[in-house]
Amino acid sequence: MTLHVDLEVFQQTYKLKIEHAMLDFVNERDMPSTIRDAMIYSLQAGGKRIRPILLLAVIEGYGKEIRSGMKTAAALEMIHTYSLIHDDLPSMDDDDLRRGKPTNHKVFGEAMAILAGDGLLTHSFQLIAEDDLISSNQKIKLLSLLAKCAGPEGMVGGQVADIEGENKRLTVDELESIHVRKTGKLLIFSALAGAIISGASEEEQNKLENFAHHIGLAFQIQDDILDIEGAEELIGKRTGSDESKQKSTYPGLLSMEGAKGKLQFHLDEALASLADLNMDTALLEQIAYLIVNRNH
Amino acid sequence: MTLHVDLEVFQQTYKLKIEHAMLDFVNERDMPSTIRDAMIYSLQAGGKRIRPILLLAVIEGYGKEIRSGMKTAAALEMIHTYSLIHDDLPSMDDDDLRRGKPTNHKVFGEAMAILAGDGLLTHSFQLIAEDDLISSNQKIKLLSLLAKCAGPEGMVGGQVADIEGENKRLTVDELESIHVRKTGKLLIFSALAGAIISGASEEEQNKLENFAHHIGLAFQIQDDILDIEGAEELIGKRTGSDESKQKSTYPGLLSMEGAKGKLQFHLDEALASLADLNMDTALLEQIAYLIVNRNH
Repeated sequence: MTLHVDLEVFQQTYKLKIEHAMLDFVNERDMPSTIRDAMIYSLQAGGKRIRPILLLAVIEGYGKEIRSGMKTAAALEMIHTYSLIHDDLPSMDDDDLRRGKPTNHKVFGEAMAILAGDGLLTHSFQLIAEDDLISSNQKIKLLSLLAKCAGPEGMVGGQVADIEGENKRLTVDELESIHVRKTGKLLIFSALAGAIISGASEEEQNKLENFAHHIGLAFQIQDDILDIEGAEELIGKRTGSDESKQKSTYPGLLSMEGAKGKLQFHLDEALASLADLNMDTALLEQIAYLIVNRNH
Repeated sequence: MTLHVDLEVFQQTYKLKIEHAMLDFVNERDMPSTIRDAMIYSLQAGGKRIRPILLLAVIEGYGKEIRSGMKTAAALEMIHTYSLIHDDLPSMDDDDLRRGKPTNHKVFGEAMAILAGDGLLTHSFQLIAEDDLISSNQKIKLLSLLAKCAGPEGMVGGQVADIEGENKRLTVDELESIHVRKTGKLLIFSALAGAIISGASEEEQNKLENFAHHIGLAFQIQDDILDIEGAEELIGKRTGSDESKQKSTYPGLLSMEGAKGKLQFHLDEALASLADLNMDTALLEQIAYLIVNRNH
């Protein structure tokens, strides 16, 4: 067991390295400057980098070398960034602001925003395929899992279901199934990728998958709560936007009290999944609390 | 040496198998039915399937098992299909018809067309990563090369340069550099993927890359010629569309006679690249002639 690491310190250190890894990759490639600028604009838009931090926290917990996960972490954040660019488009959520800054298509136009998203999605697979620090077999496992979690079976399918769920009153199960795909699968990839890179057993992987599943749902419930309770300046976008789009939310279906109870349930389940793992789980526990206690 | 195969027979046989491989993959996955329908609509829109046929023709030429290339061939056609869906969008080329049928966003709406493209792009990497008939090392080579040829360094970068070149008078070199990226790189992937799957040497790969480079340019010059000379009913879209978008074309820059001369030059270069290859090049020769002589 290593000494317990503080998540804030860990996040500060590796956020910068993840950002460098993404920018280095994009800057080293030969491409038209417009799309490079458009991709870099969104890669630099900030954020907590919670997915790659989770991936690296699993590797740290297993006492393995963090640098062996750096390219996969960067690839993962690129996929997340592409999904935000496409989700913000006028034909999708039609958002003008993202983290307080104009969205990609507001700055670069719709065509370039679509292509910047396509470029980041493609680059993310390239980054993993070209990683020298992990084996071909690990790369294939990661690439296959990433495609499954990000594609129509996962995140892209979740966005489809989310669009189709607008202006409908969903059941809690339907809402949960949308979130499991739209945000949950990529969090599951984050945890499993850390485990694959660390060489963890299948049993360990199952527990980590369960952990990620529950923090994913907790994340989304907290998002819905913040959409109602959060202050506009803190989350950098209009609050109450779910309501104005007639989207089903946890507080809307369960009342605010019910939603907070469900949040606590998923936090408890997530923490319970960490028992009996052959690793130092301190960072993962802190990640779970961070998701529940965040105010933006 | 096997007996020389007729391209038309080869194409008839394998076109169907490629289409089945794509549809089987999409149908076997669990996803919302709307995005499945949207992806399948464009996968079934027909076309010559020239890229996967080229890939399989290289494997046939080396006397290797065609089935070992089938998933990569399907992945390649999925990437091509995604690029057509995104290129047709209102913010890009704004095309209502593709091969005589309404474009994807005309049928499924813009949001779904963007997501169907994202889904096909992601699936194409998944298809290769999950292929059981080739080694992990071959898969990594293919995935890395596919991302490079399809992403901002290749096809996506070409689309960016193409958009930026509208309403400008380009030089022939600038026009060629756009086409090398926009259509050339994916044809180069086609030929190289066949070589990688066949275990061909680097020297052989270089010759095949050169062949694909020249047939790619010949393809584009013939496209420009057909845009002026082709009959509307044959190519299934409005002719003269380049002119109406103020796009630079080979006939526009070089005169029709000059463009036809350049087409012949690239055909000659392509055929010359096939000399001294350790394979039966009959199918590849026929592919080169097909590109130059096609009337749609």
